[in-house]
Amino acid sequence: MTLFYAPDFTPSQPTLPDDEAHHAFKVLRLAAGAVVNVTDGHGNLHEVKIADADWKKPRLQVLRTQTDFGKRDYRIHMAVAPTKNADRTEWLVEKCVELGVDEISFVACERSERRHFKTDRLEKIAVAAMKQSLKAYLPVVRDMIPFANFVKQTNAAQRFIAYLDEEKKAYLAKAATPGGDYCVLIGPEGDFSPKEVSFARQYGFEPVSLGNSRLRTETAAMAACHIFNIVNERC
Amino acid sequence: MTLFYAPDFTPSQPTLPDDEAHHAFKVLRLAAGAVVNVTDGHGNLHEVKIADADWKKPRLQVLRTQTDFGKRDYRIHMAVAPTKNADRTEWLVEKCVELGVDEISFVACERSERRHFKTDRLEKIAVAAMKQSLKAYLPVVRDMIPFANFVKQTNAAQRFIAYLDEEKKAYLAKAATPGGDYCVLIGPEGDFSPKEVSFARQYGFEPVSLGNSRLRTETAAMAACHIFNIVNERC
Repeated sequence: MTLFYAPDFTPSQPTLPDDEAHHAFKVLRLAAGAVVNVTDGHGNLHEVKIADADWKKPRLQVLRTQTDFGKRDYRIHMAVAPTKNADRTEWLVEKCVELGVDEISFVACERSERRHFKTDRLEKIAVAAMKQSLKAYLPVVRDMIPFANFVKQTNAAQRFIAYLDEEKKAYLAKAATPGGDYCVLIGPEGDFSPKEVSFARQYGFEPVSLGNSRLRTETAAMAACHIFNIVNERC
Repeated sequence: MTLFYAPDFTPSQPTLPDDEAHHAFKVLRLAAGAVVNVTDGHGNLHEVKIADADWKKPRLQVLRTQTDFGKRDYRIHMAVAPTKNADRTEWLVEKCVELGVDEISFVACERSERRHFKTDRLEKIAVAAMKQSLKAYLPVVRDMIPFANFVKQTNAAQRFIAYLDEEKKAYLAKAATPGGDYCVLIGPEGDFSPKEVSFARQYGFEPVSLGNSRLRTETAAMAACHIFNIVNERC
């Protein structure tokens, strides 16, 4: 199954953006009669027949539309400090989208080494990962904001902060209950400061551990995202 | 805590290999009096004081030795077809070591795009990830062998094969029981062939799913490894 992303696609106006049309007709060389899938990133999955393969003005015929394709009864919001090495942040976006995530926010922390951060490239990575893993919901990727602002404005029902100190904490796979609206905070390479942890706790973020291993920032984000999915898929 | 890897280290002969000595004394510029940790990759963790910081012939004094450091009562053997893109295989080795794995084998499958494969670089990545995540057991990384040979010679008590077809399969997080000796097979980009699946089943590999998402090879390997760890850390 080949999946294309066309944010403005509707059954009455079935069009592909230029880059997707180029990919379909110039790279994959799809011909008239081929059947492909198109999503708008909002849960709609259209099965589409190519009626005319003119890449500048293709004609597409919608055969079938599934709404709420792959809709889940839980929601994952990942908030993470960008890694020093940009590749590792790109990787975490790709992996969280593959595993299933709804929203990724970036937070600037006291010990963050990265103060400037652009999300343009990450949005492209999220689109590619959505297509590759055959999903019809495009996760939202948000620009970096200060840690305290993020903590104050977040109202997910189940809020967690994962960090490394010696303190005994609940294991996220036990603390998260199925069907939840989750938000988890993952710190920078030097971890959250004690002040940040205490601030988040005031705002109802429960301290959690992600297991016995000391994980890198991007691995921790991916592990937390996977844990939420496992908690829900187990039931 | 800084961790060094010295495979031949013993309390009676406390030496560092040249590359680790160079890193300790030339890069980190550790001086006499500094205390560091050294592992042999076989579960021994030594707390070591630097008595003389001559990098060509350092003198080290063992303060304390912990045996079986971080020893677990389960064992994870990951068998995976190398990805077409070598970076993705390197990434999966790093992430599985961080999350916790004991042995990584590579298998050549019918639909493998990669026929030649060297593990030298992967061993270095495994060492770096072991040090970074403060573990004292170095996972074994094995050269690629044909799929059928691997299947025949593997005798882990809980054997699984993860693949993607429509068939209803058990979810690995439910199928794996705690405290196990696990082996899981993860296929190449084009997945296992039906013949390979049937062959593995004959040898007692249970078909499993890794959840609702279609995952890339390297993400599937990492997800399976994480699931085994979660199954054990939950209990």
